[in-house]
Amino acid sequence: MSGAAEVDAELTDPALLTALLDVERALAEAGAECGVLPESAAEAIAQRCRPEVFDLAALAEGADAAGNPVVPLVRQLTAAVPAAARPWVHHGATSQDVLDTGLVLVATRAGAPLLRQLDAAIGAAAGLADRHRDTVLLARTLGQAAAPTTFGLKAAGWLLGLLDARTRLTAARSALPAQLGGAVGTLAALGPAGPEVADRLAARLGLAAPRLPWHTRRQPLLDLAAALGSLLAATGKVGLDVGLLAQTEVAEVAEGGGPGRGGSSAMPHKRNPVDAVLLGAAARRGPHLVGTLFAAAVQEHERATGGWHAEWEPLLDLLRLAGGATARTARLLSRLEVRPERMRENLDALGGRILAEAVAARLAPALGRADAHDVLARAVAAPDFRAALLADPAVRAHLTERELDQALDPANWLGSAGTFVDGALGEYRASEAYRNSEKRT
Amino acid sequence: MSGAAEVDAELTDPALLTALLDVERALAEAGAECGVLPESAAEAIAQRCRPEVFDLAALAEGADAAGNPVVPLVRQLTAAVPAAARPWVHHGATSQDVLDTGLVLVATRAGAPLLRQLDAAIGAAAGLADRHRDTVLLARTLGQAAAPTTFGLKAAGWLLGLLDARTRLTAARSALPAQLGGAVGTLAALGPAGPEVADRLAARLGLAAPRLPWHTRRQPLLDLAAALGSLLAATGKVGLDVGLLAQTEVAEVAEGGGPGRGGSSAMPHKRNPVDAVLLGAAARRGPHLVGTLFAAAVQEHERATGGWHAEWEPLLDLLRLAGGATARTARLLSRLEVRPERMRENLDALGGRILAEAVAARLAPALGRADAHDVLARAVAAPDFRAALLADPAVRAHLTERELDQALDPANWLGSAGTFVDGALGEYRASEAYRNSEKRT
Amino acid sequence: MSGAAEVDAELTDPALLTALLDVERALAEAGAECGVLPESAAEAIAQRCRPEVFDLAALAEGADAAGNPVVPLVRQLTAAVPAAARPWVHHGATSQDVLDTGLVLVATRAGAPLLRQLDAAIGAAAGLADRHRDTVLLARTLGQAAAPTTFGLKAAGWLLGLLDARTRLTAARSALPAQLGGAVGTLAALGPAGPEVADRLAARLGLAAPRLPWHTRRQPLLDLAAALGSLLAATGKVGLDVGLLAQTEVAEVAEGGGPGRGGSSAMPHKRNPVDAVLLGAAARRGPHLVGTLFAAAVQEHERATGGWHAEWEPLLDLLRLAGGATARTARLLSRLEVRPERMRENLDALGGRILAEAVAARLAPALGRADAHDVLARAVAAPDFRAALLADPAVRAHLTERELDQALDPANWLGSAGTFVDGALGEYRASEAYRNSEKRT
Amino acid sequence: MSGAAEVDAELTDPALLTALLDVERALAEAGAECGVLPESAAEAIAQRCRPEVFDLAALAEGADAAGNPVVPLVRQLTAAVPAAARPWVHHGATSQDVLDTGLVLVATRAGAPLLRQLDAAIGAAAGLADRHRDTVLLARTLGQAAAPTTFGLKAAGWLLGLLDARTRLTAARSALPAQLGGAVGTLAALGPAGPEVADRLAARLGLAAPRLPWHTRRQPLLDLAAALGSLLAATGKVGLDVGLLAQTEVAEVAEGGGPGRGGSSAMPHKRNPVDAVLLGAAARRGPHLVGTLFAAAVQEHERATGGWHAEWEPLLDLLRLAGGATARTARLLSRLEVRPERMRENLDALGGRILAEAVAARLAPALGRADAHDVLARAVAAPDFRAALLADPAVRAHLTERELDQALDPANWLGSAGTFVDGALGEYRASEAYRNSEKRT
Repeated sequence: MSGAAEVDAELTDPALLTALLDVERALAEAGAECGVLPESAAEAIAQRCRPEVFDLAALAEGADAAGNPVVPLVRQLTAAVPAAARPWVHHGATSQDVLDTGLVLVATRAGAPLLRQLDAAIGAAAGLADRHRDTVLLARTLGQAAAPTTFGLKAAGWLLGLLDARTRLTAARSALPAQLGGAVGTLAALGPAGPEVADRLAARLGLAAPRLPWHTRRQPLLDLAAALGSLLAATGKVGLDVGLLAQTEVAEVAEGGGPGRGGSSAMPHKRNPVDAVLLGAAARRGPHLVGTLFAAAVQEHERATGGWHAEWEPLLDLLRLAGGATARTARLLSRLEVRPERMRENLDALGGRILAEAVAARLAPALGRADAHDVLARAVAAPDFRAALLADPAVRAHLTERELDQALDPANWLGSAGTFVDGALGEYRASEAYRNSEKRT
Repeated sequence: MSGAAEVDAELTDPALLTALLDVERALAEAGAECGVLPESAAEAIAQRCRPEVFDLAALAEGADAAGNPVVPLVRQLTAAVPAAARPWVHHGATSQDVLDTGLVLVATRAGAPLLRQLDAAIGAAAGLADRHRDTVLLARTLGQAAAPTTFGLKAAGWLLGLLDARTRLTAARSALPAQLGGAVGTLAALGPAGPEVADRLAARLGLAAPRLPWHTRRQPLLDLAAALGSLLAATGKVGLDVGLLAQTEVAEVAEGGGPGRGGSSAMPHKRNPVDAVLLGAAARRGPHLVGTLFAAAVQEHERATGGWHAEWEPLLDLLRLAGGATARTARLLSRLEVRPERMRENLDALGGRILAEAVAARLAPALGRADAHDVLARAVAAPDFRAALLADPAVRAHLTERELDQALDPANWLGSAGTFVDGALGEYRASEAYRNSEKRT
Repeated sequence: MSGAAEVDAELTDPALLTALLDVERALAEAGAECGVLPESAAEAIAQRCRPEVFDLAALAEGADAAGNPVVPLVRQLTAAVPAAARPWVHHGATSQDVLDTGLVLVATRAGAPLLRQLDAAIGAAAGLADRHRDTVLLARTLGQAAAPTTFGLKAAGWLLGLLDARTRLTAARSALPAQLGGAVGTLAALGPAGPEVADRLAARLGLAAPRLPWHTRRQPLLDLAAALGSLLAATGKVGLDVGLLAQTEVAEVAEGGGPGRGGSSAMPHKRNPVDAVLLGAAARRGPHLVGTLFAAAVQEHERATGGWHAEWEPLLDLLRLAGGATARTARLLSRLEVRPERMRENLDALGGRILAEAVAARLAPALGRADAHDVLARAVAAPDFRAALLADPAVRAHLTERELDQALDPANWLGSAGTFVDGALGEYRASEAYRNSEKRT
Repeated sequence: MSGAAEVDAELTDPALLTALLDVERALAEAGAECGVLPESAAEAIAQRCRPEVFDLAALAEGADAAGNPVVPLVRQLTAAVPAAARPWVHHGATSQDVLDTGLVLVATRAGAPLLRQLDAAIGAAAGLADRHRDTVLLARTLGQAAAPTTFGLKAAGWLLGLLDARTRLTAARSALPAQLGGAVGTLAALGPAGPEVADRLAARLGLAAPRLPWHTRRQPLLDLAAALGSLLAATGKVGLDVGLLAQTEVAEVAEGGGPGRGGSSAMPHKRNPVDAVLLGAAARRGPHLVGTLFAAAVQEHERATGGWHAEWEPLLDLLRLAGGATARTARLLSRLEVRPERMRENLDALGGRILAEAVAARLAPALGRADAHDVLARAVAAPDFRAALLADPAVRAHLTERELDQALDPANWLGSAGTFVDGALGEYRASEAYRNSEKRT
């Protein structure tokens, strides 16, 4: 339930098996290219790297005994190839080489639909920022109505959050290196050809070439985890704001819904902001999964006693959560029902109090900041804010009624909101997300 | 790979579906007992609460739209019962009632094999403590040889860690309450019978009766999470110590192995401490899952916007990891190859330096602690520790050669190790784990 | 800023120094009682265990080199006592014995004001539950108005959360054991008197007697951490609910304030729910500190290589955060401005929709649950809910107008709210928190 | 104890006060430059922004009531300036602007000594990699002796880990933006000059210019946290490896020590690897602090209800831990006692078993991988590995004794270790860390 179908499909056990076999095949072929194993052996191996002939249950059982799934996989693969090719299966590699490269491959593959969804979410946020550049609503700080802002600026904040996460995710994803170090990171079994085999392995799989084996130096995974964590924070922010704006008493937005979405089993009148809620759920889990990967990254000597094994599931969980969160954000933002009139009603309901700072700003030069603050504090406490101001001699000495009403018009107290929205949209139009969306249409 | 088959079997999607249907059945029956729905309706509902007729894929899809799997489940169940019973399906309950109770049921059920495995682990630790009560080995502090201790005391430490976790786990498990609050925790739809229905629901499912609905008061899950986290710390300690003792240079223990266990794909000479390593992996993930549940526990108003949804998978992950860790610990400890001679060799290799404190203790009353410390510091730095001591006039003035050799016998510097082992074994024999093991044999 | 003065005072560097010296004194005196050191030496040592003569800066510097503050403390203490007593300073103990016992002592001492504050918070929550047993307000689920409940039930939830945390905290606190194991946990340097010295040490300091040394078995700290984490979740729930209820658009409660509380530097009209916000901040940090202690608990052999050292600050941070959170909760709840009229306004503003479930419940027996749900779904979507219901033939066929209005009265749809409040207050009156509050008045 | 003096000095309360006042001064001056306040007012304000005249205790007390320290600071500052300047104190800003910018300033300032220390650590790692490029030692995987590698390659791994962390840290640090959004992120009080004031504020403080206000978009802090977390993982890896290599039974390295370093209060013969242990402690805390910042980053609307407040201490903690960890790593690596003879001894003690893979590699082409593996498995189990191989007809059929001995020479089975070391050193020489070290000498 927490994922998105297209992303999830890249994260299943069969998808991982496919990736592991892709690695074994690429390893054999790269080795053959470099002359460390016979062409014919590589061909024979490559032919057998077909996931459908492997027994997942047997692999799982073997993995339990060996400590990882590659040991039984290599055993099955070896048994499947002709005798002449057997010595060359998995040649020069250690289990971790294949599993690390396989996981990195899975992450890269899952990244494709994930980024498509993220682009859709980004496009939807940009659309909201653009359409609502000048839609006035209450800004809220610490849960309290504070001053006017625009819905466009709020959406621009979501937009930048998503764009920033995208930048980090694409950087981390494209830097994910193949792993090839052999038993202890020296590639001893490959002789002098080792680094060349590693480079060709990476090239064949579309991965970055490793500088050195990174069996116990996990920065690439930390970068990926931090990027995914940033993404979950950015989508969590969208969900949090939407959930708060959708509260019954606020009601400034609603999730677009669709058949069966957000119904309640007990209460027919309710429409729950389901996507917002599930974005919140993902945001609560993300930081702990990020933390798990940072904790697991401190690994012993040439290969770890537990840290490595602790990475696999949390990494896949992070990808799955990010997949679900981007899909939900894209849907949520593109279908979001925005209610400018309600925004205005909520603003007006405060009788101008929300513009106390605007009035204070007009009074401060004359009265001093402290006195202006006091004048406003008194008026805010009065039943009718505007009337109280008009009745205050200190106010009347410096402001006409017309000037006061100008001060009390929220549209005159938006500062640089429009400029900021334009800046964010400019960033969007310069972004890869925008170029991709142009391509798709 | 990270789990144990018997425990995992209770944590699958079908097992959860079974539990959810058990809850719907018990809810109907409890309601009928209290007169809030007709007996005949309860019977009709109960008859249809059979997991095999439900479509898991449709449930998953419906869950995505509704935000939880109970909404579509209730829809399917309602469609399956005769028309007359339909108004009574899920009567008085909200989705969270059924999912919370279902999860608690799953946790309780998974707890049975988990505790059996834990008892086996505890029994094995007790066996080691008992058999090796007087087996001398090096104690190591901060990674350095420090002084003699016994392997029995080390095992007694494991034993107490496991016993403590067991106490917390059984307490947390047996306190897990059924959940029944209705839409907002008032049980309004059940009229005055509400609390009675809740109690009977709990009784039918073998769960604790809830004091009040706990939709957004998650202490029962925090207790369970902390207990499982404590268990993973206790098994992680076993794995860590065994891994360190099994290091090639130490080699005082080895995992008992068995066919295919711990082989290396690249290195025929290796036997990897696979169980120890995987205990380490589980121990690295546990604290972050515990943290997730504590973070998710702060939930809004009458029902949460994300916190609740964030609990499900981490809770199941914790149970699964704990299942795997107890099974591995039981296997590891019951098959552990202990090598007393090697322990003695490692001790002797230090030429008595390890007993510097023992010698210092004999010298301190005469020389003062500081001077005694200095005497020993000099001797420790000499190539032959014993010879250096014998050559030191300050030593000779206060100790005969025989007295020195007594001081240098590790068996004379074990303090209360035996007493402590006996104490731990006494606790074991007074424990439920012991009573259960007696029953089983 | 995150703490409470009375609790913080027990957690300072000087307070820790005092505790460490209390341990050294009690160790000497317990040893003398058991005959392992001369009475006169114990007296001489006890006389010098006065914090004011120690140099904190020198201790900090020495701690950096030695890896813990006890090594330089023992050096300073040894230098301070007469020559004859020097061999007996710190006799039989290792640094960790003194630091663990000192930290446990600090935690115990900080626990006294912390529990007093918690009792005040509990009392305030009980007062709210009692006074507002029948104050009707909207229940909100997933951020949406759901059905009526009472403010008393909401407060009863807070009350039980705080009571549960209190139970765990007092249990964990009173189980905190003294630590005495000597260099490697065998108490070798104390001869057969070891366990007796440990017991007397514990008794002198008012701590639990250790079963065995727990140098690398950290369950007592895990229990404390989990209890403090539970407390921060319980106070975080209070802060979260209050913050949401205090939102401008909801405005059903306000923080009681006082001079200077919650003012905004920029906006004179704002009164920020500062305590609620800071409870939220503490709740966000708690789970990660709990996680740190669980992660640190997996420790090597007889003494850890990092795990132990990682505990000190997070444990003190948790105590400090819990101190601040209980003080804030007590203040927040005892001064909380509750606005029943506003609660009623918010409820009434929904035009009865909130009672859709109540109406559906009356219709379901006749129409069937599904049809009743549909009837209500149509009416909810109409501009005037009540009118739409009255106009619906299916409704009119089964309900009179008077029956409909009874169904639409929130006071008739509170289910067992009152019973639940009474149950929670019953628990309170049976609690230690209540007995303590009786004693204080 | 967990920090480093130079870094810690930038993280104290007085240092934060200084930074906050630097922000207020720069804000006034930037405003005056843009014409939003009188030059004379800016001068008067700037003159009073002197930390020594502020009362830290009063600020702390005021912070508790206001929810942050800027509110009372602005009050004190306003009181301190001449009446004419008062309206202009803090003009256009909100508390969070000043605190965020102040924290970012503190982080930037602490970064200077931190990076110097990190450069020293990097230089020391590079020196070890260079000097020990060809020093053979056992590679260990899962705690087991696996095959030969070089100490140079191990140090090259540390080097790359530290270099990678450095890259991320300098990028994150130099991207830290000033914060200026005013009450709700629109800069309304500054009129059209807002963005210009923000840019000049940033320029005056040497910070990055903000794109938009980032009150509730915390990516800059997430990048910093992830970088610091990566650094703690990299230094933790150094500590972990050194601690393991320093174990009594391994003894291939020792901490360089110095007066008072690593002594034990109870055991005169011990020299504890204190720096390694404390690196381990920092590494255990880091992931949870990173997780805290990611969890706190999901913030409400225009300003958060707790998330923001939860960031301050964990961010300072991370900086402090990173300061301590880099200082320790620099000291540890520059003084590390490396023992090539002991490395060789440990290798030789395995009687060639460690080269089983090398022998298997020579046999595999002839025997097939599986048979070669079996041959080696038999020999490994024999008491004398080399003799068993010589006695095996399958071996003798394909290898001469001389060829076997070549296979058993670890120096012939290092693969690309040297190439990898050269690669890492090449990266180092192209790095800013290297350029800085050249400048310093």
